[in-house]
Amino acid sequence: MSEPSEPIAFSDPAYRAAVVDLMGVIAYGELSAFERLVDDAKLSPRLTDKLALDSMATAQFGHVQPLMDRITQLGSDPVDAMAPFVEPFDAFHAKTAPSDWLEGLVKAYVGDGLAADFYREIAAFVDAGTRELIMDSLQDAGQADFVVDRVKQAIADDHRVAGRLALWGRRLMGEALSQGQRVAAERDSLAALLAGGTDRPGLDLAAMTRMFSRLTENHTQRMAELGLAS
Amino acid sequence: MSEPSEPIAFSDPAYRAAVVDLMGVIAYGELSAFERLVDDAKLSPRLTDKLALDSMATAQFGHVQPLMDRITQLGSDPVDAMAPFVEPFDAFHAKTAPSDWLEGLVKAYVGDGLAADFYREIAAFVDAGTRELIMDSLQDAGQADFVVDRVKQAIADDHRVAGRLALWGRRLMGEALSQGQRVAAERDSLAALLAGGTDRPGLDLAAMTRMFSRLTENHTQRMAELGLAS
Repeated sequence: MSEPSEPIAFSDPAYRAAVVDLMGVIAYGELSAFERLVDDAKLSPRLTDKLALDSMATAQFGHVQPLMDRITQLGSDPVDAMAPFVEPFDAFHAKTAPSDWLEGLVKAYVGDGLAADFYREIAAFVDAGTRELIMDSLQDAGQADFVVDRVKQAIADDHRVAGRLALWGRRLMGEALSQGQRVAAERDSLAALLAGGTDRPGLDLAAMTRMFSRLTENHTQRMAELGLAS
Repeated sequence: MSEPSEPIAFSDPAYRAAVVDLMGVIAYGELSAFERLVDDAKLSPRLTDKLALDSMATAQFGHVQPLMDRITQLGSDPVDAMAPFVEPFDAFHAKTAPSDWLEGLVKAYVGDGLAADFYREIAAFVDAGTRELIMDSLQDAGQADFVVDRVKQAIADDHRVAGRLALWGRRLMGEALSQGQRVAAERDSLAALLAGGTDRPGLDLAAMTRMFSRLTENHTQRMAELGLAS
């Protein structure tokens, strides 16, 4: 089979730069999530729980290479493409280091879900090939059920846990939005991607607001699945 | 295809217990090596180096599940089978936490190599199916060249590094032997496996001594590949 020809959108250097940025942010996001999950897995009360979190982590790591390959294909260096996002993600993780196993679980579930929602929203504005790669990189290996089960069980065992974890979920959302805004402010290319171009549809302010509403609603929904108020 | 019938050796409960122990020790060894490598990868000076160590780590994690599946097949619980080895491995890693990136690299190379050699020696005393599984779980993903390259480069940049890392390699070997002896002393089944049985060849004291010579020689060889005295 011959390589499919590159979509016309890539003839616009700004679009190409935006896609490279997008692959870079997702790749580094997955890499840093992998590292933190392996860290958090050490808080597991049982070896089976640790194995479950480590499996979630390695599944995320598996998404990094295809994203890096795509960046190379687009003529950029994958490490350079990830570099601008190292600090915001590291800052997010430093500010949201779980103090126990349950906080780690909630972070894995809520943080991952939020990131995935955001990338899915952005995926609406890119070419089909890029969109497919993004969607593939957001597949989880079905371990989400495990998190829901463990958190609900912990709340059933001790109701006070729910209040503490609900606060924790709000803090995660706040830190994620704060770092997300920082990235958007610093990376013009990503902001331009959302704003659209001559031949590409974009978001006006009202649409942007609706997008943030959807992200918030989905977050509320995920917290509810864990048995937590948001 | 039908399941191959179980080798006759497994009709001996002591042999079955020894194989479960062996799968357990290798599985937990790979799991703990995975965790520590991801930790050590954080010391990487460059994102590419971190990615290389994280890849080594996830390759090791990929070996855990097949070993656990085999334990289940043999009628035991994988988590129970790993449990006796948690403490010795954790103690080894606690006593050999690298203080920098280069120590982490040497530990990954030398520690992994030593463990692999030891399991290969033991593999000579088990049935073909078990042996094959052990051998599969010891495959590295070819990242060893990366370690050799980085360590040699560091020594070329600053010769004093070689003395420090040579000492570090000796300490790793010492701690590994000390924890290994502890495991052998506590797990009769593994010692019995090496000693052989009615229908199984084993090691006498002279053969055991030769085995330790081989392990030491290979260690020396690996240190030399890194450009280090042992």
